[in-house]
This record gives sequence, structure tokens and C-alpha cells, in this order.
Amino acid sequence: MQERATPPPPRLGATPLPGRRCTFQVWAPLASSVEVKLPGSGRIEPLRASDDGHFSGTLSQIDVGVEYVYRLDGKRELPDPASREQAQGVHGPSRVCDLRYDWQDGAWRGLPLRNYVLYELHVGTFSRAGTFDGVIPELERLRALGVTAIELMPVAQFPGARNWGYDGVYPFAVQQSYGGVRGLQRLVDACHRAGLAVVLDVVYNHLGPEGNYLREFGPYFTERYSTPWGAALNFDGADNHGVRRFFIENALQWIEDFHIDALRLDAVHAIIDRSARPFLEELADTVRERGEELGRRRYLIGESDLNDPRVVQPAELGGMGLDAVWSDDFHHAAHSLLTGETSGYYADFGRLEQLARAFRTGMSQPGEYSKHRRCRHGRLGAELRPEQAVICIQNHDQIGNRLLGERYAELLSFEQQKLAASVLCLSSYLPLLFMGEEYGEKAPFQYFISHGDEALVEAVRKGRREEFAAFGWTGATPDPASVETFERCILDHELRNSGQHQQLHRWYTALLQLRATLPSCRPQAVMAFEARGVLLVQRSAAAWMAYCFSPEPSQITLPVPEGHWQVLLSSADSEWGGPGTTIPPQLESVGELHLRLQPHSFLCCGRPGNE
Amino acid sequence: MQERATPPPPRLGATPLPGRRCTFQVWAPLASSVEVKLPGSGRIEPLRASDDGHFSGTLSQIDVGVEYVYRLDGKRELPDPASREQAQGVHGPSRVCDLRYDWQDGAWRGLPLRNYVLYELHVGTFSRAGTFDGVIPELERLRALGVTAIELMPVAQFPGARNWGYDGVYPFAVQQSYGGVRGLQRLVDACHRAGLAVVLDVVYNHLGPEGNYLREFGPYFTERYSTPWGAALNFDGADNHGVRRFFIENALQWIEDFHIDALRLDAVHAIIDRSARPFLEELADTVRERGEELGRRRYLIGESDLNDPRVVQPAELGGMGLDAVWSDDFHHAAHSLLTGETSGYYADFGRLEQLARAFRTGMSQPGEYSKHRRCRHGRLGAELRPEQAVICIQNHDQIGNRLLGERYAELLSFEQQKLAASVLCLSSYLPLLFMGEEYGEKAPFQYFISHGDEALVEAVRKGRREEFAAFGWTGATPDPASVETFERCILDHELRNSGQHQQLHRWYTALLQLRATLPSCRPQAVMAFEARGVLLVQRSAAAWMAYCFSPEPSQITLPVPEGHWQVLLSSADSEWGGPGTTIPPQLESVGELHLRLQPHSFLCCGRPGNE
Repeated sequence: MQERATPPPPRLGATPLPGRRCTFQVWAPLASSVEVKLPGSGRIEPLRASDDGHFSGTLSQIDVGVEYVYRLDGKRELPDPASREQAQGVHGPSRVCDLRYDWQDGAWRGLPLRNYVLYELHVGTFSRAGTFDGVIPELERLRALGVTAIELMPVAQFPGARNWGYDGVYPFAVQQSYGGVRGLQRLVDACHRAGLAVVLDVVYNHLGPEGNYLREFGPYFTERYSTPWGAALNFDGADNHGVRRFFIENALQWIEDFHIDALRLDAVHAIIDRSARPFLEELADTVRERGEELGRRRYLIGESDLNDPRVVQPAELGGMGLDAVWSDDFHHAAHSLLTGETSGYYADFGRLEQLARAFRTGMSQPGEYSKHRRCRHGRLGAELRPEQAVICIQNHDQIGNRLLGERYAELLSFEQQKLAASVLCLSSYLPLLFMGEEYGEKAPFQYFISHGDEALVEAVRKGRREEFAAFGWTGATPDPASVETFERCILDHELRNSGQHQQLHRWYTALLQLRATLPSCRPQAVMAFEARGVLLVQRSAAAWMAYCFSPEPSQITLPVPEGHWQVLLSSADSEWGGPGTTIPPQLESVGELHLRLQPHSFLCCGRPGNE
Repeated sequence: MQERATPPPPRLGATPLPGRRCTFQVWAPLASSVEVKLPGSGRIEPLRASDDGHFSGTLSQIDVGVEYVYRLDGKRELPDPASREQAQGVHGPSRVCDLRYDWQDGAWRGLPLRNYVLYELHVGTFSRAGTFDGVIPELERLRALGVTAIELMPVAQFPGARNWGYDGVYPFAVQQSYGGVRGLQRLVDACHRAGLAVVLDVVYNHLGPEGNYLREFGPYFTERYSTPWGAALNFDGADNHGVRRFFIENALQWIEDFHIDALRLDAVHAIIDRSARPFLEELADTVRERGEELGRRRYLIGESDLNDPRVVQPAELGGMGLDAVWSDDFHHAAHSLLTGETSGYYADFGRLEQLARAFRTGMSQPGEYSKHRRCRHGRLGAELRPEQAVICIQNHDQIGNRLLGERYAELLSFEQQKLAASVLCLSSYLPLLFMGEEYGEKAPFQYFISHGDEALVEAVRKGRREEFAAFGWTGATPDPASVETFERCILDHELRNSGQHQQLHRWYTALLQLRATLPSCRPQAVMAFEARGVLLVQRSAAAWMAYCFSPEPSQITLPVPEGHWQVLLSSADSEWGGPGTTIPPQLESVGELHLRLQPHSFLCCGRPGNE
């Protein structure tokens, strides 16, 4: 057994105590002295150093809400790396914040991961208000849709008010423009009362480029490795204990003070850590133990592009012990079939067999040679259990990394959108919807920022333009820094009440209702009929699914036992706005069923009373 | 099961065929054309490109011994990365070489790894001749000493004639000044006929700084990671298949064409590879399979400073599947006890308990905080089996990385040297002797090079001077590039025939004879008595060892069953040049034995007829 990694008290940052007292603690091994300075009063108080580079102290007459900075070596005045509130933005002073909240979610018992149906949303563009409170009115509707977990894109304080969240520089602070600490607590409380779990996207692989003062305090970063987004964090070099504590305590904050049910760990492949006891394993052990102590299991879901099953294997098998991973393969396999796109990272996809493998194993490139990566990718023979992979047909990255950020509502026909939805909702793996896809939202999801540093803004603009040019794009390019780009991405929830948008929303609801009746286990059979463009999936003895990707009508034979069968769901039905179907709702098998499928359609057959 | 990684024929490099034909193959994905050019005749022949960046072709009228270069894109003329012979040094042309040899070692069946007693030697300084042939006259003596395996420091072609070997730039070529391909084959053949296994040190983590033309051919290196010795090799990025094939085929060459029994993989912690199917695992699988096909098991022994048991765990447990690792911990624990040194990486050592843990687990820092590294090191609870760790009290690094390269013969008293030898020879792990330590060789092992590039030589000189200065050294510093430095390191085998040198040699022989009678299993008990300076080890029911590190006489009680016991070996005996012992050779236990130990002594007690 490994040692317990939970840090000792006091916690990092400013922690108010009864009687107007407040404890401060900061890891600053590069400083020889650290003081707390209150800019409002000019008061300066020294902190006491410990052997391992932490400075701490308890001060009296500190009110919640007061601003403070740390003064290092009597000179440099900097905000707190573990600040909970940056009311004046990333360059301003930190603020003493009370994380205690009057929770009303005592009845919430959590959900097992296998029951997660995730709904990823970006707080800033989900509602016109762009706040946590702006999400709450939609919760009941999402619950009725069949969603069981809200996944919030990162909320750690970032520069300005418009950002996807991956430029956060105060991992412990909640974005002020979203509603800050209280806003997030209200949203989680509301979710739990609505029966919804909350997943929070956290970034432990890099920090944003503006307002990042961590390197002034200690060796948070290393030069030995690099990430696509700048300096790599120091998880395996000298003094990594302070870096690990910082992020592990961060995970515990979300769990303890915000009642978060699961963390989505951004790009764990960019957490480069070659130690014999890796940070991720230590994090997973700590979160598991803390969840048990708190009486409710918490989950860690990693985004990883390594296709390495060790991410979710237990430590005894040499793994990191995360609970689940995002499967990009599943998305790419579905996307290239649906759109016909084969450029960039879609070069490795486009055949039904790849989607079939993704249905079987959660991955479609286990150990194969990847043309796009120009190397073997993943691990031969690897398989993920149904609750070990989060899959999607759209997400913030897959939409937002397109030049114009178009959604399927722009790229696909209505019938194709319904087909895509059925691929998403009825595989064995955990589906993740991207906000608005359930009603065919038209707003794009484009890349937007609002950094204060003009040189940085220009660099981002230039980078985007070059990226566009590399793809041969000659038209106008959305300016990532403009308000218009951001506003263009705000959802129009009104759409949902009319026409095909409404039909699509009902279709998602029907799919998720059907999903809830199916066992959470690997499919019994998955067959790809490339020439006919049909994927056949047997999810249980009594449930067969046919996905027709062909633009022409196609034929399929289901090898099902004799007796009565019925159509449980058919996307071609006029009920779902389809062209109509020739298949009667009641079927009689003579050892097999011959079915004629409409172009771009989905059909599910079941055996009555046999689920 | 993972796929077979053995490369398809033809093999890399120049391979002579019957009838004066010769196949050439080179991986050069950065070239659009590759030709073979024979500088002697001016003949130029094109090679045919394959999809994966390899160029190959079979040419006629090619004699063994002819010189050739590759011409890339009709312009750059370069030696073959897989050259077997660089008769004119690292910048000269390659030479067609016939690896076939008239082997006389048919009776050799190999040794199980648990029976390895290794003897590390540097070919250039082991004998006055500095050649493979210069080693052969000592083989019978080493066999009689109790050595069972010769370990050769790297022999791949390096710049000049004086080098430790870690600056090699032609991994497939055998250093010309050592005797080249034939010389190595003769030595291995002679070892096997003398009943000795041969371990070869190979460097798969970097290439030397001079004469390294690999990056002209393909993406052998990556900028994403770095090693202390320059660019990291590309084992997990685009086109890594060519890099992996290069080194895997290299390993197979030593096994197949040179009958090498085991490879010592230099610094595997500097092989940075985050793929789901790591290179080391692929290498281990391939070597294992090839050994089985050839009817004799081959071993991989990694040098790793990660203290990570996954290096030797099987792939099913998330490991790399190497057979054994070097344990620096064992050395450091013993060294700091013997010398009292506690600076640099010895800061974490100096207590008996650390040596006790190294006797128990093969490591002494499993998961503990390291003051030197300023982080937790290794993995708590990890244990290595006896055949999974190679241990030493001296080796090329531990001696050679000292400022003046002094050996224990300079640093320790005679009694301490004998004590050190008993620590080495009688732990459960696989002992490695460094050439000459068995007779107390006085020659230092200093850092030496003979690069041709003057700027590089000056940089190395400067680096060494700065390193010396950092340690506060103000005296003269050995010039790594001078012939004198090299010659100072050449062994004086004559020493062995006189005085304490002869006594020490007999002592090592006696220790290794005793070792051969002991079971290869973890000790039954290991106890550290810090105050008395005594380490007590029960290697079996009938064998107790007491190591006295105290400079004063010390007492110890062995809790052994009633009956007759005897002293099997006592370093204090006058027979071994010791001060004499007060312990009678025959002992009677009354449930315990009270023994008075001489300063810096070793004693082994056994139960007659009970082994």
C-alpha cells in the first residue's frame, strides 16, 4: 500500500477561522521570506517558514472579503497561487474567501459512473447571462432529456471574461465573471437537488499564459519536458512534493467545498511524470480515499490521447487508477463516417470497422499504425469496460478546433444528425453531449479569448490565422479576441421549441430512455458491413441495433431467434420527422429478420417482454 | 499478446551474400533518394525506397572489406548508421563486413541469471594491449576467482581510441582499436569455452557528440525531451518505428552474430517513451522470443535510477519486462558506511538500516524522501527478487565519477576492503566486480576521451574543470583528453602476485566459493544494530553473516539453535592477512552465540552438514 498523500493542515491559501482570524499558507521555496500584505490598510505580517518551503501563519482581525497579496523577500508583491477569489482579475490582489456554504443537497447520494450521461457546457456561452445562475433554469429540462451529469468546462480564474477556460491561472479560484465561489456552489447544489451529478474540468497539465505568477514562488514548472501549451509542470523533479500537494489539494477542494462528483482531468498525456509513484496515481488514491471518508464515491475521468489502458488500470497492474478516459477514437470514427472528412487526424478513419472496434473496445486504434501520427498508436488487445470510456460525437474540442467551429447542425442533414445521436446514446460507453447538440443548435463554438496583454492577443490572432492558412482557408477568420466571436457562440435555447429542433430534442430523449433500459455491458456482437454501409450491434439478447450510414437504402439481416420481435425505435419514422419506414412495428422472425433500411437511419429491434 | 517486432529481412547495413553480392539497407525517411557509393572505384548505385522510409538493394561484385558511403539526395555522402566497421574512424567511410564466424562454443549452454557473478571491464584499460585479445589470457583466472560473467563496457565505435564507450556513434560497429568485429567474436568464443557468460553494455538512450550523422537520415531524435547527454532518442513520436527497429535489430545482432548472453542497457531512465507499447517492452519481448528460438535464454539488465519496480515487472503487470536492474542504492548504502562520505548523492545514506533494506529488497529508498533529489524516490513496498538486481561496491561510474577516480584500494584500509568484498559477494543479489577490485588495483579509473573535434575536447575539459571547482577542488585536474590520463588507468595485473593484493584476491575467491554454496533466495532475516555498527544477515537456516562496520571491536549475539556451529569465514583471520580473531573455529550454541567482532570485519557462521 502507498502512503496517504493528503496534505497536513493548514490548507493552502487563506482560510478564515472563527473570531476574525485567518490562516495563510503558501508554498514558496524560492523565497527567503514571505509576508502577507493587506493593500487596503497597508498592514504587513510575516509568515513562518517550514522545512519544506511552506510559509504559514494565523493573523487576527482579518475579515472575509479583505484583499491581500504575498510579499516575497520584502520586495515582490504577488497574488496568492491558491487564491479563491480574484475580484479584480488575474493581476489584482487575492481576496479572503469563506468556502463554507449552506448546502441543501443532503439527499444526494451520487450516481455510479456507469449511469453517467454527461452534458458538457461552457458557462459563458450556455446562457445569455453567461453565469452559473444562468445554467440553473435548464436543469430540469436536461434531467427530463435523460442527462444525469453536468460537465462544466474549466472555471478556474482566467484573464478577462471570455475564455474556454484552459487559460486559467488560479486553479483554486472560481471565475469571477461566472459568479465566483458562491455561484458555483449554488449551481452544484441545484444540480444535486435536481438529481444531477456535476463533473468539473480541471487543468493539471499547464497554466495559462497571462497572470501566471507561480514560477515566482517555486519550481512549479520544469524545463525537462514541454507541452503544446507551454512549460510542463514539475511532477517528478526536485521539490515536486509542493507541486503535487498544490494540485491534490485543489482536487480535494472541489470535492469537499464544492461537492463536485467527478473531475475531468484535462490532457493527462501532457502530465509528464516518470516517477515510480506517479502524481496521477497519488491523486487517484487520495480522491478515492477521501470519497470513501465522505461517504460518496468521487470519480476521475482523464482526457488522454495515448490510447493506453494503463491510465485506467489499477496500480497493482501498473496503472494510474483513473476511473475512465475520454475516447477520441470513438468520436473520430463516427465523425469521419458521418461527414466523409478524411484530412488531418481523420486520415486514420473513415471505415465502419473502426467504429465497430470503438463499440467493442472503446478505442479504434489499439496498437495499429496511425497514418496521421506516423507511428503505432495505443496498445494491441486493449479493451475498456463500458464505464471506463466517455464517448461523444461532438464536444468543445471537436467543434471548436474546426476553423469555423461548425456543429453537426451545419455539417449534417437532419437524418444524419439523428443517426449520429443514436451512435452516441446507444453504445455501451458513457455518452457526452455538447451543449445544444440535443436540439441542433446552430451557433458555432469558436475559439475566443479576452487576454489583457495586447502582445499575447496579437500572438493568438496570428497563430489562428496561420492555422487557417495552413488549411488553405482564404476567407475571413473569426477574431478570437472580439466580443462578436464570443457572442456568436451563445446558445439560442428558443430554437428548441420549433420544427426539427424540437424533433431532434424528442429523439435524444427517446434514445436516452431506451439506453436506460439496456444493460451496462459490452455488446454481445458488433458487425460492420462496409459495402452496405451498415453497422449491426447486438447490445443484449433482446436488443439489436442497425446503423445505416449509406446515402442509399440498404438491406440487413438480423440473425435473431424465432418469434415475435418489435421495432423499439426507428429514426426514419415520421414520428421523428423522418421520411417514413417500410418496416412494420411488429416482426416475426423465422431465425432471421430481413430489414430494409432508409438512408442515414437507425433502427432498434427488441423482443417484447424480454429485457 | 503483442505483435512480433522482429524486423523483416533484409537487415540494416551491408550484408554480404554468396557470389560477391551484398545487400544494403538503410532507414532514411528524410531523403528522397539514397545511393551506395564506393569511394575506391567511384561506383554509384541507387537503392530502392519502400513506403516506410527504408532504402534497399542488392549489388553485385561487392567484396568484403570494400569501403562505402550512402549518398543522400545526390549530394550528402555519409557513413552507414548501421555500419559494422569504421576502419578510418567515425568520420570515415563504412566497410562491408562479414559477421559470420567459425564459432567453437557449441558446448556453451548459458547460465541462469541467478548464477551470474559479473566482472565489469573496460577493454581499453584492462590490459596493456587494450584489446579484446588482451582480455583472453585472464579468463581462466577470473573463472577460478568465481566470476561467471564478463561484462564489457560499450564497444560500439566511438571517436578516437580512448573513451569509456558512452560516446559511441555507430551502435552496430565494434570499436576498431579494440580489435573490431573479429576481436569481439574471438573474446566471446573464448569466454564461452572458459565457461563464462558475456554481458555487453549497450547505449540506447543517446548517441555520442562526435561523428553522429543519424539525424541526417531520419528523425532518430526528438526535441520534446532531453537527456543529460544531449538529444533524446525518438521512441514515441512520429516515425519511431524506424528508430525502434534500428535498436532492436542492434540487440539482435549482438545476440545472433556475437553470441552475447545478456545486454546491459545503459541508463534506461533516459529512454523517454510515453507510448502505450513502450520500446523497452518491445525490445524485451523480442529478445526473449529470439532467445527461445535460439535455444538459449538471453537477458536484459537495465541501468535505471528510478527505483521503479515496473522496469522488471512483466507487461501483464504494467511493467517493461526487463530481467534485472542495477541497484545504485546498494552501492551508495555500502559506500557511505565504508567511507563515511555524505556529500552529493551520499547525503541520503550513511546508516546501517539503509544497507539492511538493500539486502532485503535490492533498494534502500523505496518511496522515501531523498534529500539529494529533494523529492520522494522510488516506490514504497517494492522488492526485487535476488536475480532481479545487480549490485556492486565499485563500478566504472562510482569510481570514475569521483574527481580523481580513486578506488577503494586508495580510500579504504585493507580490513575495510575485505569487509566491502563480503558485502558485495554474500548478499542475495547478483554481484558485479569492477576490474581489478579483486586484488586491490591502485590505478584510478578517470574520465578520458580522445575526440577529434578540438572545440568539443575543450568543452569537455571546461566541463570537468567546472565540476571540480564546484566541489571546491583547487589542485591539478586530470586532463580527460591526455594520453597520460588514459594510461594512468591501465591495470597492473602484476600487483596480484604479492602481499595484500594476493591476500585480497584469495579472499574474494573464498567469498565467491562460499556464495556458490548458498541458496539464491532473499535472506531470512536482516538486522541493523546501528549503535554497535553491526549488520546481521541470516542467508539460510544454517548460514549467519555478521558485518562489523565499527572502527572499534563490537559484540553481537546470533540467535541460533542449540548445537554445533562453525566459523565458515572470518576476515579477521590471519589467513586473510587480518589482525587475528578470538573466535574459535568450532562453536557450541546454547540457543545463541555471543561473538566478539574485530573492527571492520566480516564473519560467517554455519551449521556443519546442514547446507
